[in-house]
Amino acid sequence: MGKFCFGVDIGGTSVKLGMFSIKGELISKWEIPTVPETVLVDVAKSIEDHFTDEYLKKDCSGIGIDVPGPVTGDGIVSQCVNMHWGRTDVKAEIEKLTGLKAQVANDANAAALGELWQGGGKGYASLVMVTLGTGVGGGVIIGGKIIAGANGAGGEIGHICVNPHEEVACNCGKKGCLEQYASATGIVRLAKLAMAEGKKTTSLSDIDDFSAKDVIDAAKKKDEIGTEVLDKIGWYLAFACSGIAQITDPEAFVIGGGVSKAGDVLLKAIGKYYNEFVMDALKNKEFRLATLGNDAGIYGCAAMVAGEKIG
Amino acid sequence: MGKFCFGVDIGGTSVKLGMFSIKGELISKWEIPTVPETVLVDVAKSIEDHFTDEYLKKDCSGIGIDVPGPVTGDGIVSQCVNMHWGRTDVKAEIEKLTGLKAQVANDANAAALGELWQGGGKGYASLVMVTLGTGVGGGVIIGGKIIAGANGAGGEIGHICVNPHEEVACNCGKKGCLEQYASATGIVRLAKLAMAEGKKTTSLSDIDDFSAKDVIDAAKKKDEIGTEVLDKIGWYLAFACSGIAQITDPEAFVIGGGVSKAGDVLLKAIGKYYNEFVMDALKNKEFRLATLGNDAGIYGCAAMVAGEKIG
Repeated sequence: MGKFCFGVDIGGTSVKLGMFSIKGELISKWEIPTVPETVLVDVAKSIEDHFTDEYLKKDCSGIGIDVPGPVTGDGIVSQCVNMHWGRTDVKAEIEKLTGLKAQVANDANAAALGELWQGGGKGYASLVMVTLGTGVGGGVIIGGKIIAGANGAGGEIGHICVNPHEEVACNCGKKGCLEQYASATGIVRLAKLAMAEGKKTTSLSDIDDFSAKDVIDAAKKKDEIGTEVLDKIGWYLAFACSGIAQITDPEAFVIGGGVSKAGDVLLKAIGKYYNEFVMDALKNKEFRLATLGNDAGIYGCAAMVAGEKIG
Repeated sequence: MGKFCFGVDIGGTSVKLGMFSIKGELISKWEIPTVPETVLVDVAKSIEDHFTDEYLKKDCSGIGIDVPGPVTGDGIVSQCVNMHWGRTDVKAEIEKLTGLKAQVANDANAAALGELWQGGGKGYASLVMVTLGTGVGGGVIIGGKIIAGANGAGGEIGHICVNPHEEVACNCGKKGCLEQYASATGIVRLAKLAMAEGKKTTSLSDIDDFSAKDVIDAAKKKDEIGTEVLDKIGWYLAFACSGIAQITDPEAFVIGGGVSKAGDVLLKAIGKYYNEFVMDALKNKEFRLATLGNDAGIYGCAAMVAGEKIG
């Protein structure tokens, strides 16, 4: 087993890279710009530059990489629109470029593994992460391993249908996805819908182009519309998490992404409804906040190759 | 690795036992009555009786056992009401009684594994089984392994909430569980509710105490109420399966239990709605019928100890 490893989080505009001890300490991190045509070569080169007398290549246990697209359990990227990739064997390519062992995962799944390894889910062997950002992503970790799925679509929590009566379409084309309510975009949408009804007062009407944060902040100040929207997203998240619990029975849920900066009020809003929808054995599951922020991906990637049994 | 193994399915009134080759051929099967106080001793004795000159104990790779209650991934039974057990380490007890390696699982999860090994899901590495009987059970298999869950409540598909507006309580205490609609009991209930509305004609009113089979048979003959109920259970099953797919992305779904004898009309009823609720990558999943019937449990139990990599 090596002494250190790399985690590489490939995003649409930049690639985050981290060097980690195999125990999970971040030794250094840096970024390079994403150039889709050459990104894997650029990553290989950037990693090569980080071998030193102290960190010899022979002591490196490997490279974990994530990409913003579906990845199967054997490291095949089915498609990655941002990189203009069709079906690509990223694992084989990066191993050839570097001569190091590699593992590949979807970015949201890697973030979930990172939170389990060194973040909000540290100490657990199984967890489900729900990432509330512009969209809603997620990842399911069981026994320290990502549930990648047959098509790399495991953990696609944002597109669980939570409202079969919805009439507006989600970006994915179907209707009633969790993302339409609990993402930053969804929260603003719900607030605007509630305001258009005109039945409740709100301080949000004083803000041009208000954000999801403004809605949550309003809720914290007992604003009528803010409170209604927070209650609704709590209900939708509880409903989605209850289905996930009935199927996978994880040790905990970890809530991350920009919207999770709302903190305890968000966890309370979910907790208000969650027990209603689950069997006794699944009641009172732990809901925690993510702690690694934008570094969750590089942590999770490193976890895949750290060589330690995790979870 | 041994040459053969045993699968033991502990039910409320009888224990089914099977001797299998490690490749999955059923060599012989038999039953003994369930006496809760002595069931594990009885099982050990019954297995001991089946070692012969041809099947030597030293060539046995182990015993897989399932029980009708929650079992964690490490073989601990949290509770088994039928056996009057609290927390019980069935794996350790049966290993001590027999001197053989043992694995323990929940009965519905074992049935799912059995269908993957030698039944309707043969050849797959991942599948979700939905068992439609008096209640609704299920099991999730990923990479040839049961997702048992932190409390042994993984795969509790029957109690996924599919209708948050339901006012009648399920046996589990909560409202809107899949089991309230898609179980044999649920199907009869839905037919009676539709008949009470009095808007549609039905041949079911000619049958005293009609069964779920009568409802499905009526649907096959284009009976109005039968057709309405089959459509509804298709919708509820599709909704539940869509959530499962978004989370675990299995290779296939296998539908078993008494209600699945309805055959293709049931699969068609699910297929009518399933694609509506899932992302493109998850559309057109394979839905198959279970093939092992009441033997699925012993097959799945044997699979746990067969020693072959399955899936």
